Amino acid sequence: MAGEQVSVQIEALKNFCVKIFQKLDVPEQDATIITDVLAAADLRGIPSHGVARLRRYVDGLRSGIMLAHPQVKTVVETPSTATIDAGAGLGQPVAYAAMKKAIEKARTVGSGFVTVRNSNHYGIAGYYAMMALPHDCIGISMTNADVLVAPTFGRNAMMGTNPIAVAAPAGNERPFVLDMATSTVPRGKLEVYDRLSKAMPLGWATDERGVSTKDAHLVLENFKKRAGGGLLPLGGEGEMFSGHKGYGLGMWVDIFCAVLSGAAYANMVYPKDADGKPLPANLGHFFGAWRLDAFRPADEFKAAMDDLQRRFKEAPRAQGQERIYIHGEKEYEATERYLAEGVPLDPKVADDLKALGKELDVTYEL
Amino acid sequence: MAGEQVSVQIEALKNFCVKIFQKLDVPEQDATIITDVLAAADLRGIPSHGVARLRRYVDGLRSGIMLAHPQVKTVVETPSTATIDAGAGLGQPVAYAAMKKAIEKARTVGSGFVTVRNSNHYGIAGYYAMMALPHDCIGISMTNADVLVAPTFGRNAMMGTNPIAVAAPAGNERPFVLDMATSTVPRGKLEVYDRLSKAMPLGWATDERGVSTKDAHLVLENFKKRAGGGLLPLGGEGEMFSGHKGYGLGMWVDIFCAVLSGAAYANMVYPKDADGKPLPANLGHFFGAWRLDAFRPADEFKAAMDDLQRRFKEAPRAQGQERIYIHGEKEYEATERYLAEGVPLDPKVADDLKALGKELDVTYEL
Repeated sequence: MAGEQVSVQIEALKNFCVKIFQKLDVPEQDATIITDVLAAADLRGIPSHGVARLRRYVDGLRSGIMLAHPQVKTVVETPSTATIDAGAGLGQPVAYAAMKKAIEKARTVGSGFVTVRNSNHYGIAGYYAMMALPHDCIGISMTNADVLVAPTFGRNAMMGTNPIAVAAPAGNERPFVLDMATSTVPRGKLEVYDRLSKAMPLGWATDERGVSTKDAHLVLENFKKRAGGGLLPLGGEGEMFSGHKGYGLGMWVDIFCAVLSGAAYANMVYPKDADGKPLPANLGHFFGAWRLDAFRPADEFKAAMDDLQRRFKEAPRAQGQERIYIHGEKEYEATERYLAEGVPLDPKVADDLKALGKELDVTYEL
Repeated sequence: MAGEQVSVQIEALKNFCVKIFQKLDVPEQDATIITDVLAAADLRGIPSHGVARLRRYVDGLRSGIMLAHPQVKTVVETPSTATIDAGAGLGQPVAYAAMKKAIEKARTVGSGFVTVRNSNHYGIAGYYAMMALPHDCIGISMTNADVLVAPTFGRNAMMGTNPIAVAAPAGNERPFVLDMATSTVPRGKLEVYDRLSKAMPLGWATDERGVSTKDAHLVLENFKKRAGGGLLPLGGEGEMFSGHKGYGLGMWVDIFCAVLSGAAYANMVYPKDADGKPLPANLGHFFGAWRLDAFRPADEFKAAMDDLQRRFKEAPRAQGQERIYIHGEKEYEATERYLAEGVPLDPKVADDLKALGKELDVTYEL
């Protein structure tokens, strides 16, 4: 029976997830990385990308779409760049390795960039951008994704919510962490409105004609049936509020992640064979790091970051508003709270974890 | 008397501008670069950043805010990065040199990035990103700018329209050229609505309380009086349509251009002295280049870019729509038309150019 929302200790949750992956023959080191990325999403208040997704990874490993022991190869390399073929492995371990390589290159020549092809869903983009922070680097991370977003003036979804994450260190203030889908809202937001039978604002998504609609249920059904329509890019429908900019940001991500790496792009990700059986997703990612002191002494940069943030946080607020946020601030506060009080777990997700535990003979004691 | 819209030949217009700059002691090479950037804006259909701005550069040079013979210094350098102090010179020549340096570094180590501090208005961001194209590189260019945009939940403008430009080569198709302000619309759009006494859509700009308004005239008056309010970031007011993402993109640009280079950031650009006299703007820019074949053979990349573009252009259109555009396409088409038929010049701008010609003893024969 689905009960109330529960809170769980993050370490117990992580131990459980690592064991699940190990049962599916994922090496411990990789299992630990994947779990850490999932847990980071839950800790940052982005449960859609957290352990709620464990089932999908399990399914991917079982069906052979995601390989536990992929052949990972660096196919091109220069002093400041590289391209890695992930061999249809899980997204997180190769993404982690790629970002590490980008940071190493930044340490050596000032900046470093690594693209990845033939990969899978890698979790939250922000995780990898934030890996740069302890190295006094600015980090960037992008990925393409399942086809959900319609281009400006287009009827059908042609690309993913293609997120961009940028993380920059600060001194006494918290780092700046921008982690944004290039669509106006994610699919999860439509699911919430659908559950509540609430009308969406116009400008989030389109119906099968490619026209903005308030009907979240219709859009989600159309997704399932591939009947047309999609999420709208940041800026909404048409050009009135500059939806073409969000569309352009999404295409930029697709170019850097997939065209540059040799992965599948646009609506070619998550292909199927002639019988409709899913083939490896062939997603692409892009990672980068810039060393602060390759431009300016790191302490000067951090002092200016502190001042920049304070100027915004202490600025006069719009009527009726209580607070001006810096990007990443809400997520850092969520992490602090959840580490102290436990991570909230949706009862449906908790039930599914229990079921996974039974299926794979892993004790669920959270 | 202000007459009808005129069309002028671009070469004649450029010759005139170069002579104007030379009369103000700008070296011929620099005058040619500045003029080329201004002309590129007119040719690409962005007249707000074209020769219409000539007067502002003239004023800047006359008042000493922009120096014709600045001391330009490279202050930090690594194999893939550099920071340049522009010495309060004009923005275009140092931006041109910085982007060239980024491309050279990309040729040597795979990618290159150059920040610039102590600079001035540099024209259209896209110009510099596009410099990468003939070198088989992807280019990026960003700049901070005069304070016009309010952060999400903030009452007052705290940053510029901080544009991002990304240019990527293609094969048979035209290059992808994204060149976008991170605000929903530019100030120029409000000026058009003000002239027509037309109500703006809510979500473009805020009044002195920081609340979305339809009154373009009010917003523009408030700008002049520094009375509060501002343009809204891409995504509009609050978080309903993800205005916080546009705000984050704008802050990203400020961090890369100004915090990283040591330029003025947030609302500190265009400072004034104790008597209210303008001081050098101290703007910052960021330039970068990634060599295609540092990731993948260039011909493979270009073939995939062609295919990507065709997929979008040939995709089904939303009801009532005639065409799906690729970023840069409209501007390439404008350039072709204007090169053949002459560049349209607003009569007011033509009059101002004539007046400048008289003031500086340069023949105006366009």
